Amino acid sequence: MPKPKITLGILAGGSGTRFWPAGRRSRPKQLLALDGNDPRSLLALTLERVGSITDEPPRLIAPKALAKPFRRELSKAAVDACLWEPRPRNTAAAVALIAYAGWQDAPKQPVLVVPADHHVHPVGTYRRALAAMASRARRSSSIVTLGLLPDHPATGYGYLQLGALVDERAVGRFHEVARYVEKPSAKRAKAYVKGGGFLWNGGTFAFMPEVFIHAVRTHLPEVASPMERAFERYGKRDFAKALAAAYDEMPAISVDYGVMEQAEHVETLAVKMGWDDLGSWDAIARHLEPDADGNRVRGDVTVVDSKGCVVDAIDGHVAVLGVEDIVVVRTGDTVLVTRRGQGEAVRDVVKRLETGGREDLLQ
Amino acid sequence: MPKPKITLGILAGGSGTRFWPAGRRSRPKQLLALDGNDPRSLLALTLERVGSITDEPPRLIAPKALAKPFRRELSKAAVDACLWEPRPRNTAAAVALIAYAGWQDAPKQPVLVVPADHHVHPVGTYRRALAAMASRARRSSSIVTLGLLPDHPATGYGYLQLGALVDERAVGRFHEVARYVEKPSAKRAKAYVKGGGFLWNGGTFAFMPEVFIHAVRTHLPEVASPMERAFERYGKRDFAKALAAAYDEMPAISVDYGVMEQAEHVETLAVKMGWDDLGSWDAIARHLEPDADGNRVRGDVTVVDSKGCVVDAIDGHVAVLGVEDIVVVRTGDTVLVTRRGQGEAVRDVVKRLETGGREDLLQ
Repeated sequence: MPKPKITLGILAGGSGTRFWPAGRRSRPKQLLALDGNDPRSLLALTLERVGSITDEPPRLIAPKALAKPFRRELSKAAVDACLWEPRPRNTAAAVALIAYAGWQDAPKQPVLVVPADHHVHPVGTYRRALAAMASRARRSSSIVTLGLLPDHPATGYGYLQLGALVDERAVGRFHEVARYVEKPSAKRAKAYVKGGGFLWNGGTFAFMPEVFIHAVRTHLPEVASPMERAFERYGKRDFAKALAAAYDEMPAISVDYGVMEQAEHVETLAVKMGWDDLGSWDAIARHLEPDADGNRVRGDVTVVDSKGCVVDAIDGHVAVLGVEDIVVVRTGDTVLVTRRGQGEAVRDVVKRLETGGREDLLQ
Repeated sequence: MPKPKITLGILAGGSGTRFWPAGRRSRPKQLLALDGNDPRSLLALTLERVGSITDEPPRLIAPKALAKPFRRELSKAAVDACLWEPRPRNTAAAVALIAYAGWQDAPKQPVLVVPADHHVHPVGTYRRALAAMASRARRSSSIVTLGLLPDHPATGYGYLQLGALVDERAVGRFHEVARYVEKPSAKRAKAYVKGGGFLWNGGTFAFMPEVFIHAVRTHLPEVASPMERAFERYGKRDFAKALAAAYDEMPAISVDYGVMEQAEHVETLAVKMGWDDLGSWDAIARHLEPDADGNRVRGDVTVVDSKGCVVDAIDGHVAVLGVEDIVVVRTGDTVLVTRRGQGEAVRDVVKRLETGGREDLLQ
């Protein structure tokens, strides 16, 4: 059976800030091994699981400044297909970039955009969901997103409120999206999960190029206009220069906030599947096997009389003694000691190092 | 004024177990920099403060296996004066060794035995106390110990219960010792400090050689007899071999338990002075300046939103974020993360590493 023709984009922007000290400016999250005990990077795992969806090479949307480490993870064909972003402009610009590229190269085939840094399980369900999303996008003139049936009241994810049922497949049902909800309070998250009718926002999209372009032109012209000027040079030698000029002009806005929340025709595929956006060390811990005392460790670690700790010994050895719910991440030059539930605050350490001029610990 | 003739012994045995990972088999506590922010080892600080008490070179009683690192800290004369212990046999053997050596070399001068790994302050008071102890030993036929007036109900030290007043100097009063008390419970320690009449046992001794030898012969013949056989070869080429044979036979017993608690004539000099036996990372922390949140750190450390932490970054960088009362000790190959009050339990980590065959982390 021939594989469907799909323009497959992989969102590989983003920084390693929340994963310092493993994550650095030169080693963003998607280049780190953060999924269970698998020693491969999140990007490598993503390439493996989406590579078989289409015969065309995947198109990475990735920071140009980090082309070198990214190239190491890619085939020659995938390197040639990369869309290098001249600077970070959040996901609205990144998704617009692959939408315009798809429109130029293959306007009749759907664009499927997946993040490079999520955990999914099982992979078979995930692949079927992506194929169903692309197929639905081809016929519906909607932007189709991936929605996950929540199994606990997570406060770290965005939610989608379900509207009318519009289609059904073996892998799940397609609904209109009634509303986007930012990360909720614990109380609200509980109500969403208990009451039903809410999904986790999987940050994964399928659309026909002209559908997304119509939405970005309508709701985010400050991204659409510079991008269209740049795409006048698409395929020419000065495209990179034109794109750099466009990115200079564009605001940094997320695709959810800038496009999806405004767009008229948004649908979601509600899938029951293990999923995690791996947003913090606490999230990483969820995919490591706990010992009898709930400690979750990777690498060369000695645990004595401790409970609920998370330890990632990337280089060297770590010993924990008589502590609870402590998080330790050790690399060659530094070690972070914090506690569970401090995921977002890791940024505060990075800020402190920035103001202290500690480039040595940030690069 | 000529300095008094004193045989000055420095007890430099002991292990680094409680200070792992800074302390290793090849780097016992006395070779570590653990006193405040001073970068010198405890032994170097001890040599500096006791060196001026007598004109003779100090005689280290130190493990032969570690002669090399010890030699680095010593003058040529001090190296020649070393008494190398063939294996560890606790303090009864170590003090007996210097007592017998003093008896052979200078039977008419007192022996003063000081630990190589304590904190004292101010040094002037300490020196006056040592001189007074040696002077008292010369005249009293007692074993004279150093007692510290307690300023808080410490549970980590041994205590001495005071008996009759026997002498008085500017630096303090000499009392008979009524009783030795092992490390007490918190309740008992409070009662001792509140009621008065108890001192901390400073582990420091002055005696005429024949006085101590009489005591060890009487109360610990299993140490005295092998030692005397070895000393028949003292000053001869085969003394080291004879001493090794003696140490093979001897039990490992502390001088307090084996001799002092049994001896008839024991006195103590009650001194008011800052003193600490630096028995754990918590003790080390007491001599570091706290920041506004009570964190005490050494080395390259970034502290964010944390309270009461103790961090020793011996090599590399440590960041702590959002934690309280956590202790972090980082060296090149490992890091220990524990909490305050776990001082003794550090041994459990060392045991775990021993049973796990992790010689790489113990040497």
